[in-house]
Amino acid sequence: MVTVAVDAMGGDYAPDEIIQGCLDALKKNNEVSVKLVGKQDIINKVLGERAPGKDDYDKNRLSIVDASEIITNEEPPVAAVRSKKDSSIVLAMNLLKNNEADAVISAGSTGALLVGGQLIAGRIKGVHRAPLAPLLPTACGVSLLIDCGANVDARPEHLIQFARIGSIYMEKMLGVNSPKVAIVNIGAEEEKGNALVKETFPLLKSCSDINFIGSIEAREIPRGGADVIVCEAFTGNVILKLYEGVGATLLEKIKGAFNEGFLTKIGALLVKNSLKKALKDFDASNYGGAPLLGLKGLVVKVHGNSKANEVSNAIAQCIDFKKSGLNELIKESMENNWSR
Amino acid sequence: MVTVAVDAMGGDYAPDEIIQGCLDALKKNNEVSVKLVGKQDIINKVLGERAPGKDDYDKNRLSIVDASEIITNEEPPVAAVRSKKDSSIVLAMNLLKNNEADAVISAGSTGALLVGGQLIAGRIKGVHRAPLAPLLPTACGVSLLIDCGANVDARPEHLIQFARIGSIYMEKMLGVNSPKVAIVNIGAEEEKGNALVKETFPLLKSCSDINFIGSIEAREIPRGGADVIVCEAFTGNVILKLYEGVGATLLEKIKGAFNEGFLTKIGALLVKNSLKKALKDFDASNYGGAPLLGLKGLVVKVHGNSKANEVSNAIAQCIDFKKSGLNELIKESMENNWSR
Repeated sequence: MVTVAVDAMGGDYAPDEIIQGCLDALKKNNEVSVKLVGKQDIINKVLGERAPGKDDYDKNRLSIVDASEIITNEEPPVAAVRSKKDSSIVLAMNLLKNNEADAVISAGSTGALLVGGQLIAGRIKGVHRAPLAPLLPTACGVSLLIDCGANVDARPEHLIQFARIGSIYMEKMLGVNSPKVAIVNIGAEEEKGNALVKETFPLLKSCSDINFIGSIEAREIPRGGADVIVCEAFTGNVILKLYEGVGATLLEKIKGAFNEGFLTKIGALLVKNSLKKALKDFDASNYGGAPLLGLKGLVVKVHGNSKANEVSNAIAQCIDFKKSGLNELIKESMENNWSR
Repeated sequence: MVTVAVDAMGGDYAPDEIIQGCLDALKKNNEVSVKLVGKQDIINKVLGERAPGKDDYDKNRLSIVDASEIITNEEPPVAAVRSKKDSSIVLAMNLLKNNEADAVISAGSTGALLVGGQLIAGRIKGVHRAPLAPLLPTACGVSLLIDCGANVDARPEHLIQFARIGSIYMEKMLGVNSPKVAIVNIGAEEEKGNALVKETFPLLKSCSDINFIGSIEAREIPRGGADVIVCEAFTGNVILKLYEGVGATLLEKIKGAFNEGFLTKIGALLVKNSLKKALKDFDASNYGGAPLLGLKGLVVKVHGNSKANEVSNAIAQCIDFKKSGLNELIKESMENNWSR
């Protein structure tokens, strides 16, 4: 049995869609139990509306953890996590810490999740920093972008760990054999880069447990040039957000072109379905939540605009995580490479 | 009269398209003269093919500067600029240095242009670093991304100068009144960011000659959130190349969707023209070359795949540059803010 603590109060469609996602997941998977963390009366009301029947869900596998507070996206994360002890995010992290949950899912404040994950749940022994590592869609599948979190100005030893952790994730969770690892750089040659990249490059090259293929220029990322894209969190954040931004603006332009006249509107109708499918493949929000790795347990940040389907997918991701023994493998890797 | 030295040997379509671009520009503008720098016999051969008639171009405004060597994209820039004294790029930079040209245009090695610009042409007094500053297409026009060059690991005083130089460029060359300046960051709040951004933010805020609007997240760049996007060159390089990469991959996906079946092909025909126009607006290569600013003269790097039209546009850009008195304004700004 895998136990997932779900923040019922975070995200644009909370609590309704979050709770619906949990109900869907319970139906799909017999091996999961869910702890809904949030305002009890609100959760009960939604459950009463969405699953009024006696057998609508397995009541043995769904429980509520009452939380009187909510951390919003606007609050400074560190202060919020410290002061709001009874918030849904803090209580969910406590469940992880106390082994009462294997994983935490939230569509709420990314900052609070990062802080709560490190301060409350805690890191696996040997892990310097817990990286946030979303999957990016590419021309030929997905790549793991590690790190996109809030801990900027990383040192080389952090990036080495990101490469190791990312490799294990792609191999065990996505079945990629000997994942290709690359470091984000401004040129393909070894002598290129800023001080951090120059210092990290030879260290990555010397890691026998990583399939390091060298530098990757940002242009090659959407083409699927590597399975694991290693970078410092500031750079990762820029990459992740620009991915979204360029895609969204380009789609606006395309929509505008489709609406230009009568004939273009007819044309748009004819290509619509095929186009929708193609673009869905390239939508970063379609690849489950972004895992925060290297913690005791798994923390999954799902997009703020997630609906039931994304939440249910993230729960499935948590089941895979537990089954894969990912954290044991990360722990082992840290022990084998303790000096780095 | 504005004199432009054009590297006839750099780029995917050199020398034919480069020379054609010069011939077109000479026809369009009476106030420009061109110095074609490259292998004399090759240039003469192309001129003979493209403009065989006696009056095909004004021979008083076109001259050839013979260069026996070519710097390729594959060569390490510093070594290449130092050793290939008779290369087209080095000779063109010498023309700038000796006031025999007002500007240099090349579709060749970006690295060699950056090195040659700084080492040979030299910087305006007071300028710490010469930034490469391309225009990025946005939902509502263009923004200047400054710096995307090769000088990474900038210090706060460099970013302040980029903000000043970028503001002057957008105001004088693009007619933007009091350009909005923003610094690339991972959040909108002042306390967010890496060490460099945190240190630079209050300094930018205190500059009375800049319309500083604060941080910009990468997601907002394609939406046109600011006129001048200030960042360190590593970040700028990632932004520029990811812009291209995401756009190109997305367009591949769209093409695939259009070719899926009979009806989608019909639909594609109906939207084709309208779509082409919309996407052309969003193609970074359509906004002239990327200027390398802060040098004695102007150096314009045009895209490696530039054809005659881009070269001719870049020559027009050089005329505007000279007319606007841009370098005098940059010089003045550096003098007025010498302590920074």
